[in-house]
Amino acid sequence: MGLPEKVRIVEVGPRDGLQNESGPVISTDIKVELINRLADAGMQYIESASFVSPKWVPQMGDASAVMAGISRREGVVYAALTPNLKGLEGAIAAGVEEVAVFGAASESFSQKNINCSIAESLARFIPVIELAKQHDIRVRGYVSTVLGCPYEGDIDPAQVASVSRELLDMGCYEISLGDTIGVGTPTKARKMLARVANEVPVTKLAAHFHDTYGQALANLYAVMQDGISVIDTSVAGLGGCPYAKGASGNVATEDVVYMLNGLGIKTGVDLDKLVEIGNWITRQIGRNNGSKVGLALGCDQ
Amino acid sequence: MGLPEKVRIVEVGPRDGLQNESGPVISTDIKVELINRLADAGMQYIESASFVSPKWVPQMGDASAVMAGISRREGVVYAALTPNLKGLEGAIAAGVEEVAVFGAASESFSQKNINCSIAESLARFIPVIELAKQHDIRVRGYVSTVLGCPYEGDIDPAQVASVSRELLDMGCYEISLGDTIGVGTPTKARKMLARVANEVPVTKLAAHFHDTYGQALANLYAVMQDGISVIDTSVAGLGGCPYAKGASGNVATEDVVYMLNGLGIKTGVDLDKLVEIGNWITRQIGRNNGSKVGLALGCDQ
Repeated sequence: MGLPEKVRIVEVGPRDGLQNESGPVISTDIKVELINRLADAGMQYIESASFVSPKWVPQMGDASAVMAGISRREGVVYAALTPNLKGLEGAIAAGVEEVAVFGAASESFSQKNINCSIAESLARFIPVIELAKQHDIRVRGYVSTVLGCPYEGDIDPAQVASVSRELLDMGCYEISLGDTIGVGTPTKARKMLARVANEVPVTKLAAHFHDTYGQALANLYAVMQDGISVIDTSVAGLGGCPYAKGASGNVATEDVVYMLNGLGIKTGVDLDKLVEIGNWITRQIGRNNGSKVGLALGCDQ
Repeated sequence: MGLPEKVRIVEVGPRDGLQNESGPVISTDIKVELINRLADAGMQYIESASFVSPKWVPQMGDASAVMAGISRREGVVYAALTPNLKGLEGAIAAGVEEVAVFGAASESFSQKNINCSIAESLARFIPVIELAKQHDIRVRGYVSTVLGCPYEGDIDPAQVASVSRELLDMGCYEISLGDTIGVGTPTKARKMLARVANEVPVTKLAAHFHDTYGQALANLYAVMQDGISVIDTSVAGLGGCPYAKGASGNVATEDVVYMLNGLGIKTGVDLDKLVEIGNWITRQIGRNNGSKVGLALGCDQ
């Protein structure tokens, strides 16, 4: 199999990225401007908010206000994370047209991260997905720790395949495979994907690879050779790695788009605008730009 | 072609890395300790110094003292850059057993960087390589700007092939292909390599890819699929990119070794020791650690 002709970028910076920023709570205005600018740069899918309890995730406490504030563009999906029914109800009230739920491939990670077993977490999503269907809201499924777990180490690809299959069977239209701690390397990523693709068609799979160990682009290049054509990224690499101080988390959208441009793979995204956005948002929230492309191209901005 | 079983890492941090550090001149003691520690970590090839005029490169003014100071280990090559006859004479006097010369694949880069044409630069190396042969000193050849030039943009792979072939014919035993400004992406790297491999056996080629745009690991993973098994790296990513402030240059040894370990490719290098060295040297010279693996694994050191 060759490389895909085009790749759909799922921009997770405003949600997965900002949610994991450790600084002060970012204003709704900045979040809204970030989302609007990303849409203006050609991004067609923006994970914009998370409908969770502000007690647990204060950074996402203004989800409804963010969704109300953005200037919706035709053809752009503004999605939100909805871990439970209450979250989905909030998302529906806010006019969200697509949501996401998440499971883990590691039992220990599930217990420590969301305080329940994998089976329990999946069971909780049944009514969420049911209600979403009633409202014609598509549901995307995340699976975390697909290439390693901070508590268990290696994860059996069969376990990733099993959780992915369950989410698909429950009604998720796409499964995003998360290398949550960024420990994967290319062969490992390809082997995991091959196993999962036995259960879920590769056209329904996305790669959500973190760059904690600098491996994300190599891993993405590897799995694109096996049919992956949906990639989750975060502008400026927003979102640190909670397990290592100073280390990075999400792979930077700019770096991925630069590679895809070089590979002749279409994304519809304007790299120059992205670089401007990355430099702008990192100045706004007072953090380093986690994109090498942003640093190399953005020095005059 | 699959991936190689083992890769020879050419550590260029003490020379290519430190030479491009913009801070104050680093003491001979620190350079010597860096080289000794790299050898202790299992590095079998260390580019240790550059015999150039201290007027041009003050950071390398103590090349002879560095070579005299290191504790030589059996089986480790301590190489030096010798751009001219005078440099080679200095290297011979210092007991260097292997040297390197460099040409550019871009005419403009050659003119602006070393103030002469590609042909003139190659002609200068004839007596250097001749004298080296008389002393049983092996000569490695570098070709710069193989995937792009800051002045000319794209570089014709045929031009890279031609310069590589000339260096081989002149007596270089290995040609290191340098993506000097880090603009390459995987397909471009593979196409360039395929063209060069028409002229020079791939077993005599090395990849010297910079990480300025975060592409180095993806590019290395790509060219390893086409037979590259020698990779130039720099511990902690020492050596910035002179064309973009704050941007990175050399790919970090730690990040490459992490990927190779994950791919099951042997290097003989101890990653934990490398991470310690990277954190130590960056503290010594007061710069950020350019290795993501160094940041992720090194936070407790």
